[in-house]
Amino acid sequence: MEPIGLAVVGAGYWGPNLVRTAQATPALRLKWLCDLDEERARAVLGGYTTVRATTSYQDVLADPEVGAVAIATPAATHFDLVRAALEAGKHVLVEKPLTPSVAESAKLVRLAEQNGLVLMCDHTYCYTPAVRKIRELVRGGEIGDVQFVDSVRINLGLVQPDVDVLWDLAPHDLSILDFVLPAGVAVEAVAARGSDPIDAGRLCVAHLSVQLSTGVMAHVHVNWLSPTKIRTTVIGGSRRTIVWDDLNPMQRVAVYDRGVDLTPAGGLGQAERHQALISYRVGDILVPALPEREALREVMTELAAAITAGRPATTDGRAGLRVVALLEAASRSVETGGALVPVQNVLEESQ
Amino acid sequence: MEPIGLAVVGAGYWGPNLVRTAQATPALRLKWLCDLDEERARAVLGGYTTVRATTSYQDVLADPEVGAVAIATPAATHFDLVRAALEAGKHVLVEKPLTPSVAESAKLVRLAEQNGLVLMCDHTYCYTPAVRKIRELVRGGEIGDVQFVDSVRINLGLVQPDVDVLWDLAPHDLSILDFVLPAGVAVEAVAARGSDPIDAGRLCVAHLSVQLSTGVMAHVHVNWLSPTKIRTTVIGGSRRTIVWDDLNPMQRVAVYDRGVDLTPAGGLGQAERHQALISYRVGDILVPALPEREALREVMTELAAAITAGRPATTDGRAGLRVVALLEAASRSVETGGALVPVQNVLEESQ
Amino acid sequence: MEPIGLAVVGAGYWGPNLVRTAQATPALRLKWLCDLDEERARAVLGGYTTVRATTSYQDVLADPEVGAVAIATPAATHFDLVRAALEAGKHVLVEKPLTPSVAESAKLVRLAEQNGLVLMCDHTYCYTPAVRKIRELVRGGEIGDVQFVDSVRINLGLVQPDVDVLWDLAPHDLSILDFVLPAGVAVEAVAARGSDPIDAGRLCVAHLSVQLSTGVMAHVHVNWLSPTKIRTTVIGGSRRTIVWDDLNPMQRVAVYDRGVDLTPAGGLGQAERHQALISYRVGDILVPALPEREALREVMTELAAAITAGRPATTDGRAGLRVVALLEAASRSVETGGALVPVQNVLEESQ
Amino acid sequence: MEPIGLAVVGAGYWGPNLVRTAQATPALRLKWLCDLDEERARAVLGGYTTVRATTSYQDVLADPEVGAVAIATPAATHFDLVRAALEAGKHVLVEKPLTPSVAESAKLVRLAEQNGLVLMCDHTYCYTPAVRKIRELVRGGEIGDVQFVDSVRINLGLVQPDVDVLWDLAPHDLSILDFVLPAGVAVEAVAARGSDPIDAGRLCVAHLSVQLSTGVMAHVHVNWLSPTKIRTTVIGGSRRTIVWDDLNPMQRVAVYDRGVDLTPAGGLGQAERHQALISYRVGDILVPALPEREALREVMTELAAAITAGRPATTDGRAGLRVVALLEAASRSVETGGALVPVQNVLEESQ
Repeated sequence: MEPIGLAVVGAGYWGPNLVRTAQATPALRLKWLCDLDEERARAVLGGYTTVRATTSYQDVLADPEVGAVAIATPAATHFDLVRAALEAGKHVLVEKPLTPSVAESAKLVRLAEQNGLVLMCDHTYCYTPAVRKIRELVRGGEIGDVQFVDSVRINLGLVQPDVDVLWDLAPHDLSILDFVLPAGVAVEAVAARGSDPIDAGRLCVAHLSVQLSTGVMAHVHVNWLSPTKIRTTVIGGSRRTIVWDDLNPMQRVAVYDRGVDLTPAGGLGQAERHQALISYRVGDILVPALPEREALREVMTELAAAITAGRPATTDGRAGLRVVALLEAASRSVETGGALVPVQNVLEESQ
Repeated sequence: MEPIGLAVVGAGYWGPNLVRTAQATPALRLKWLCDLDEERARAVLGGYTTVRATTSYQDVLADPEVGAVAIATPAATHFDLVRAALEAGKHVLVEKPLTPSVAESAKLVRLAEQNGLVLMCDHTYCYTPAVRKIRELVRGGEIGDVQFVDSVRINLGLVQPDVDVLWDLAPHDLSILDFVLPAGVAVEAVAARGSDPIDAGRLCVAHLSVQLSTGVMAHVHVNWLSPTKIRTTVIGGSRRTIVWDDLNPMQRVAVYDRGVDLTPAGGLGQAERHQALISYRVGDILVPALPEREALREVMTELAAAITAGRPATTDGRAGLRVVALLEAASRSVETGGALVPVQNVLEESQ
Repeated sequence: MEPIGLAVVGAGYWGPNLVRTAQATPALRLKWLCDLDEERARAVLGGYTTVRATTSYQDVLADPEVGAVAIATPAATHFDLVRAALEAGKHVLVEKPLTPSVAESAKLVRLAEQNGLVLMCDHTYCYTPAVRKIRELVRGGEIGDVQFVDSVRINLGLVQPDVDVLWDLAPHDLSILDFVLPAGVAVEAVAARGSDPIDAGRLCVAHLSVQLSTGVMAHVHVNWLSPTKIRTTVIGGSRRTIVWDDLNPMQRVAVYDRGVDLTPAGGLGQAERHQALISYRVGDILVPALPEREALREVMTELAAAITAGRPATTDGRAGLRVVALLEAASRSVETGGALVPVQNVLEESQ
Repeated sequence: MEPIGLAVVGAGYWGPNLVRTAQATPALRLKWLCDLDEERARAVLGGYTTVRATTSYQDVLADPEVGAVAIATPAATHFDLVRAALEAGKHVLVEKPLTPSVAESAKLVRLAEQNGLVLMCDHTYCYTPAVRKIRELVRGGEIGDVQFVDSVRINLGLVQPDVDVLWDLAPHDLSILDFVLPAGVAVEAVAARGSDPIDAGRLCVAHLSVQLSTGVMAHVHVNWLSPTKIRTTVIGGSRRTIVWDDLNPMQRVAVYDRGVDLTPAGGLGQAERHQALISYRVGDILVPALPEREALREVMTELAAAITAGRPATTDGRAGLRVVALLEAASRSVETGGALVPVQNVLEESQ
């Protein structure tokens, strides 16, 4: 089968990774790297390439050999670039966040669905072996009911010029949450607080409390100012608890048979309940073997597969929209001093 | 000099540690171990002791050889036990929290001050070499202005019958915060959220955002349900950042010369400010040598020293009261769905 | 049943631990602490005890209430002290090494056996939950055939005045090896090299290669000069590999289903054999739950149990002798520049 | 200045890294990738390249635009390939080991020197920021006199078809040792033991004791069978000790102000010396900031710089020869049961 012609748009921080992995994906054929700065595009392509650099997005969209575009530009440009691509009949892979607003994101989702085009969000972590295993464990019932989620993503990060830490880092945690939670568990509301202790003009530290439809609280801590790097997510379950430490290559995912059990006590008043029937499990830890695979290559493979099959990608526009809805609600919560803000699901509600 | 006669009250979880360290402190002479269950008291003392066990707190307070009592009973009993001891003219060391309420705690503080007696809170961590070093670094200006604090204290902990995770674990973090912050920096308000995912009848997971008078946010995460144990506090400063990992005996305290700097830009509008003048420091890490000392022995030594010198203990009743004021406000915040609740300082205000 | 009267001899580094754990063992009754320095003995007992301090070993041995002595004095004194105790009809627990020579150790073993007395070596590690689990895994066939052993025990340790690093630290590794290896696997020879880079007059760094009867090499690295502390033992098996990291309380023992397999190739010459049939397993890691128990309390319990049952202790004199035989051969190897020195087993050979 | 034309030879395990980094080096111009299997070469180059693949080493050497070749083929082929390149007037970068024998390696070194060509060994680790910092610390006197070296490089590694673990992994440790030791400190002899517990037909585990001219012992442990990966080197000094943990990106190099000091005691007999004058330093740990640089890019840059300047590369043929001399002696030691084998330095001796 003929590979799908691809253009990468944006030669900044993430674009080079798209260029590299697209070239390593047999089902894709990289045609263009497009950037406002042609020199930068040429530098990313290097001195040995047959791929063309351009500053003209029009030329890219006009090229009939281009079947899909992969967009890695600042978030504020996503809406226009994605819309133009979809209107030109191209499939789209776009970096997170889909766009900076629910309204715009929803428009793109509808546009793609109306035109029968793939709109895929590059929620890269969802394609790691670790997160796939976690999803399998959570959805397969291995850990029982989810009781709490705690996600920490902190390091000395780049203070972004266009987005705050919430829109920069939390999309990772929120897209993972969206991906691994059992079907039927929805995000209902979010409360968030943050701070800008270096006076950077945007949040550099933020804490989100996400309220799930099961009553469970998922907490996310993102921070650009920490001198140490931590990327850990704990998903506590009624039967087992998953600890994902992405910086520990020897054992990224560990499943702990440890926890606190409370035997339901018929006939006891609420007051006595806590005392009699608590027990502790301190069982084995299992560290499942995970394949070594680069997530971004899986993203590229999934893009091609979704296009070929005419089906939505695993992390499709709706997934991207759900993450944007959460971020938008979180930003509003920060503005209102930490109040609990409902997360709307525009598309489901409008249907 | 004659050692000070001491009675330990409470032979439960913590009492045995008080018994052991009191016996190792030359300036104290352990006279009694008092518990409602005399068998339990005898078991703690062991079969080789000359110390007396008793169930009668009256006898203990009536003993003229007893100069001080150390109370390690459930928090709900603290007010009556401490008051009785102070009224009997005994100095008091009491476990955290001082009492479960600001009003009661303030009464005890006033009573001790009126009677010229030492009322000391066992904020044990403040006597560790690590926290002392941190205080020295923060107060000595080594790290510059405090920009953020992040404290995590999670593990598979005992679900307490009488207190929730907030009152059980957060006193550690809050008493440390109170101890290390520069003089003049006050706690103004707190917002807290928590959950009880195992239906234990009390919070098992809680997140606190503490608002300091400098505008800085200190965040505390306490959790009884985590299968892994984490006890880490990060204090970010404008010059350096301290990372305290209490579970890493090789390097509990590390001082990172890493951070994000923002040069104040005269004449620039708010919009441009963030772009031009951010710089990153990635300098050395220094791990200061710390002596190996048991904190609880230092507590005992401080108790004796404060009594002898007729001065307040380092972690005196007022420190205990400040922590209780924070906890009370945090509990109120949880009840009101996470609103920011001012932290009152009864004693300062009443003066 | 009446507890067995015990005297601890030696109030130096390890003696206080024997005193403390003996007092916590119901089946024992501590009667004496004996040391050449009575003040030191009194200081160890503390100011609240009913246990007697003495400088007279004669008095201890003459006391009919003393059924057993626990000896924690310098190794050079072990032979005389143990012999005297055995001749006085007392059971004996003695610190490692049993004595500094095979000949003396063998005499003590024979003496104890002739007199029907328990002679137990305090190979403390053999009583840890970790080592017990390892023994169970190795002897139960869980890991298949043992293929290699690698044991590292390094830290900034006390340069002992009377023994070198080999006799100070390696007894731990060698007694563990002796304990966990399958029945029938014997130590045949040892080669050792070491150095004294600080000119301390004794080895401060040593490497031992222990040759087992199965052809397997077990390597032990002991070092007093390392600024970091490592206590790790790897036991590679044909089916699985055990990694014991004694400084990682969250997961001391991990069982890796990882390894290199070589399918035996009938009909192939030796030259081709290596190429065709190697395969790699990268399976799960299992971290078995271990109880939290203090090993030295188990030692005390085992001492009492062996005496009561009239049976050899788990780590009896013969085990102590086997360790001394290994150490003696290792010292000879160091003296001869690293030659392989056979390890004699005096008692088995003489039978 | 015109970039130097380069051909990479060998498209197996390491070749692709040479291809990638050569392309990123402005001072080089990649012309060819040569491999016996042209398909493999094409696959490495990918579908977007302007670089030519070939199976003809002759064509490569005949190309006047090729100024240098980088050889990443099995060790057994190095001698012929390097000699042909040097005889064709090409500069050479060759993977470790230089060749499998001292005699052959010496011939290549002489040939390169006679022809005025750069012969560089790809001792990659010597170009890491960590090893450069270590060299600076050791040679600058920061740690005082080197007292011991302990290097561990173990993991579940590929059992190589053509070399044993000694020749596969130890070149890393030995080239680093060669690089960081102070000028004037020479390797005098080596003793080695190893084992092949999986019956692979070659050593899979090996321990080397390297005797330095200062009397210091450096120990190297290499192992293909360990389920956990360890890459740690400790260099103990009289003033400080360096710990390099290559798998800890947050602090690869740490300088410990910890150690054992022995004050020289005039007038004391050897017997008393050890007792009186030992003291322990437990000072700070310093973790120096290291730049983030890819070592192999530095190798490429150094290759071009050495060619341009007409000077030997930092890790030149003589460095490669010294490592081969050590490996050859180590292999002989293994064959003779662990005897100490002198390490000859052919070139220096012949001068």
